Amino acid sequence: MGFDARIENLRNQVDSEIQNLCRSKRTESLYEPMFHLLESGGKRIRPLLLILSCRAVGGDIDNGIHAAVAAEIFHTFTLVHDDIMDHDSMRRGRPTVHEKWDEATAILAGDGLVTLAYQILLNLNHPRLIEVLQTFTNGLMILCEGQAMDKAFETRESIVLQDYEQMIEKKTAKLMEVVCEAGAILGDACKSDQESLRCFGLALGKGFQVQDDILDILSEESVTGKPVGSDIVERKKTYLTIHFMNHASEAQIKRYQTYLEKKSLSHEDILSIRELFRQARTFESGRQAVDQHIGDALACLDELPSCEATEDLKRLALKIQNRIH
Amino acid sequence: MGFDARIENLRNQVDSEIQNLCRSKRTESLYEPMFHLLESGGKRIRPLLLILSCRAVGGDIDNGIHAAVAAEIFHTFTLVHDDIMDHDSMRRGRPTVHEKWDEATAILAGDGLVTLAYQILLNLNHPRLIEVLQTFTNGLMILCEGQAMDKAFETRESIVLQDYEQMIEKKTAKLMEVVCEAGAILGDACKSDQESLRCFGLALGKGFQVQDDILDILSEESVTGKPVGSDIVERKKTYLTIHFMNHASEAQIKRYQTYLEKKSLSHEDILSIRELFRQARTFESGRQAVDQHIGDALACLDELPSCEATEDLKRLALKIQNRIH
Repeated sequence: MGFDARIENLRNQVDSEIQNLCRSKRTESLYEPMFHLLESGGKRIRPLLLILSCRAVGGDIDNGIHAAVAAEIFHTFTLVHDDIMDHDSMRRGRPTVHEKWDEATAILAGDGLVTLAYQILLNLNHPRLIEVLQTFTNGLMILCEGQAMDKAFETRESIVLQDYEQMIEKKTAKLMEVVCEAGAILGDACKSDQESLRCFGLALGKGFQVQDDILDILSEESVTGKPVGSDIVERKKTYLTIHFMNHASEAQIKRYQTYLEKKSLSHEDILSIRELFRQARTFESGRQAVDQHIGDALACLDELPSCEATEDLKRLALKIQNRIH
Repeated sequence: MGFDARIENLRNQVDSEIQNLCRSKRTESLYEPMFHLLESGGKRIRPLLLILSCRAVGGDIDNGIHAAVAAEIFHTFTLVHDDIMDHDSMRRGRPTVHEKWDEATAILAGDGLVTLAYQILLNLNHPRLIEVLQTFTNGLMILCEGQAMDKAFETRESIVLQDYEQMIEKKTAKLMEVVCEAGAILGDACKSDQESLRCFGLALGKGFQVQDDILDILSEESVTGKPVGSDIVERKKTYLTIHFMNHASEAQIKRYQTYLEKKSLSHEDILSIRELFRQARTFESGRQAVDQHIGDALACLDELPSCEATEDLKRLALKIQNRIH
């Protein structure tokens, strides 16, 4: 079985666990909104990272698969609440929870999801369970800090790349770090392997987020499942907007700002901003940043004993580097 | 030291732990909204119940005090999110989090609070920690179900008392049950004492909620810290509204419904509704229900070996029965 088949196989296992879970719950007003996004597919990157990290240190997959589902549920919880805060109406080609139901329902669905993730973790029978729980919980708190920074940046004028790096480390990279570290703990890794996998997850997460910033404006809605340029519309500070403001010519920045002053941006406006970014070599710089982070991630894996799972983590990192959605 | 002094002493210990916690966090955009409600006082009933339950089975208070703070934080998390869902703008005489900041901030503050509560519990060094975590987590899920029911009831016409009982058991009584059971576990109670304290918390919680329904319309804003009759304004199904609809005369119900059809209710309207409730002996029935639940709660305590903490739990239950805010 080759890499793609192995990944597909793991993803199917995760999906089927998620479906079992969704079917087992009574169809109450709470559970349908809770499972709306969870069941909608997605790349399942975090569960894959957790399982492969567990295997990379010689761990058993049995505990891994349930923890992997918990990881995806934590992730889904953050998406459901972030979508409310960011006023996003589409996600994975479907209406977001607060769009399909209402805000109250989406707040509660998120609360239910985070609780469910803890329930699943607490059912694991593992000697290092407290450590796993602490890893997830401390990570979640950092995630909240990252989301707070992200929201605060929307109304702040001058964000430098250093602020941005700190924000994405907290908001995105942290959960990737957490799932890799949790997988390592569940595989009963030694301190050094655990640290290597933690660093791998962190670097991968940073690369993932810069790539996400690029795809937000370069990919088509039919591929990403969300409107092109939604970051710009929401006045998010992304790698691209920060690079552009620091490297574009005065004339380019002036033109860019006339768009930002508009109350609403059309698809054509987004395309024009895209062209401005291209002229300022912003995408090129973004690509370099992605490559740098992924390179760092791969270097962390070199510290681990070579095995199929470690190789799969490398190929997964390369897939993320070159992904188009 | 008498009962009141002992309770005051415990409450001060809880408050001082909470203040230490709030001071220890960096003043970031996340933490100020998180601590806004937590620091605003409140009756601290859940922490008191946890500590006294722990002591009632001969447990040590050291673990109890931190778990008690975690219990108050879980409670605060539910309040912050419920206030958004219920559009409440005042709580404990202060603007609610979403009112003082905005909804996004309040959603995130709630998420940060639930995470913080888990962080505190995970720092306890206790042989039965997983059990404590499961008790809180399973309880939280029931709480979410209860809140979903409460919201669903707002737009449902015919709610019978049985539906209401189920809803308050989940939404309010569950957390009281959880803190008493968690206190018992932390005190390393035997199965039978743990069960007695669990049942005590559940019955007390039901009495507490019916009492809350009564106070919502009978108490003054200066005492409760929230507007008189906010349940009626929000079209909540409470013990009072359900009893009234099932026991008032046709003419009384007709008059009541003309108020409900109004888009907004004045203070005078609320006073008129109060008078209608009085005529239908609704408050009397509510009082009887409170007395019944508190009686059940006290009976559970009779199963426990007599000691000062058990006596204090009894007196606390009687205080709740006769509270005016």
